[in-house]
Amino acid sequence: MLKYQQIANKIQKHIYDNELPEGTKLPTVENLALNFNVSKSTIVKALDCLVSNGVVFQVQGSGIFVRRRNKAGYINLNLTTGFTTTLKDSKITSKVLDFKLINPSKDIAQLLECSTNDFAYFIKRIRYIDGEIMCLEESYYKQSIVPYLTKEIVDNSIFEYLKIALNLNLGFSDRYLHIDKLDKDFANILKLNTGDPTLKVYEHIYLSSGLIFNYSILTYNYKHAQFYLQSGSLK
Amino acid sequence: MLKYQQIANKIQKHIYDNELPEGTKLPTVENLALNFNVSKSTIVKALDCLVSNGVVFQVQGSGIFVRRRNKAGYINLNLTTGFTTTLKDSKITSKVLDFKLINPSKDIAQLLECSTNDFAYFIKRIRYIDGEIMCLEESYYKQSIVPYLTKEIVDNSIFEYLKIALNLNLGFSDRYLHIDKLDKDFANILKLNTGDPTLKVYEHIYLSSGLIFNYSILTYNYKHAQFYLQSGSLK
Repeated sequence: MLKYQQIANKIQKHIYDNELPEGTKLPTVENLALNFNVSKSTIVKALDCLVSNGVVFQVQGSGIFVRRRNKAGYINLNLTTGFTTTLKDSKITSKVLDFKLINPSKDIAQLLECSTNDFAYFIKRIRYIDGEIMCLEESYYKQSIVPYLTKEIVDNSIFEYLKIALNLNLGFSDRYLHIDKLDKDFANILKLNTGDPTLKVYEHIYLSSGLIFNYSILTYNYKHAQFYLQSGSLK
Repeated sequence: MLKYQQIANKIQKHIYDNELPEGTKLPTVENLALNFNVSKSTIVKALDCLVSNGVVFQVQGSGIFVRRRNKAGYINLNLTTGFTTTLKDSKITSKVLDFKLINPSKDIAQLLECSTNDFAYFIKRIRYIDGEIMCLEESYYKQSIVPYLTKEIVDNSIFEYLKIALNLNLGFSDRYLHIDKLDKDFANILKLNTGDPTLKVYEHIYLSSGLIFNYSILTYNYKHAQFYLQSGSLK
């Protein structure tokens, strides 16, 4: 993790641990640089990072202020780093319904920018939030980038494994959201009724090099999934 | 608009106008600074801005590359600047169902951080995308910040008016998304059936000073609304 990211995490932790209320003014860039014993440019980068993440806002010529805290139990759509990270206040668990190494279909191969002769892990999991069914997750991971997955890993947080054990440089994501009705099969899995509303999220996740390594389809349970989204700045 | 934002807009326009494909490498920071006749730090800020907006990605030590272009007809959830700006390739129109100056209810006053004796504009509009019903929008604007709205303005883009005529410094937004079933009244307005799926988006929009000026509830038509969301970097 880069220095400015470490500082950003520390400032964020300070805000959350001390439950600083909305509108609290942070020390100046100069004072933060002194406190953390880093350069002003590192502090500026750290603050930019916190602005994009919706933790603070900056008023030119006036200072840096704490933003409203995210509501607990809401899935943070600003992040694509797995529910285990984004829903820290809730207990996230999984039940693996399917886990295998496959040759991707033509459609999936195209999405993963690989050939149908390449290999990909296919994982189908129910994700639970505090014991309630939150979504069905169908994920494809390119084996050329994620060479080795086990049942034990997919029982837990795959993203933590990718970051910590494989040391992958996660880059960015494209997500497409569609409102839909559940068909019979999905309704059965989510323990809802056919025709009930759902949000389907199609995720394309890239390494920082721009290579795609993961494509997932998330089908959300409308009773146990709600989302928030913070814009850092309106342009 | 600040200098680096102007440069960011110019680079983005260049990418889109020339339909530069995904993965195209941009000139170096040094060359961009020379081309635009600005400092390197202005270019770095402009590029940071394009990274957050999902236009380009940056590979350390390797360069800056064009990201996949957004699909046409998808609502960009990264932006909170009104559909007229975010759906440039589609024709966005409105039908105003209600427009009046009100004293907000207790709930709305709390959301707008004002008193029930203050005044707010209430606007109820159907928004159309290429002639199809996209959503119902119920908006509250605090009169202390938006002193004057007319039927003509609300027939068109309110955000354009706020930015250009009122010269407001739009800041940031918090949005909460819920998947739901339509009740009879909403179904009638959206020309759908009772019980059909919908996405409800609750928007809180702030000036850059941190003052809230707008609260809106958007109820989307699942047949004519789809969304995309790009993360600039996975942390």
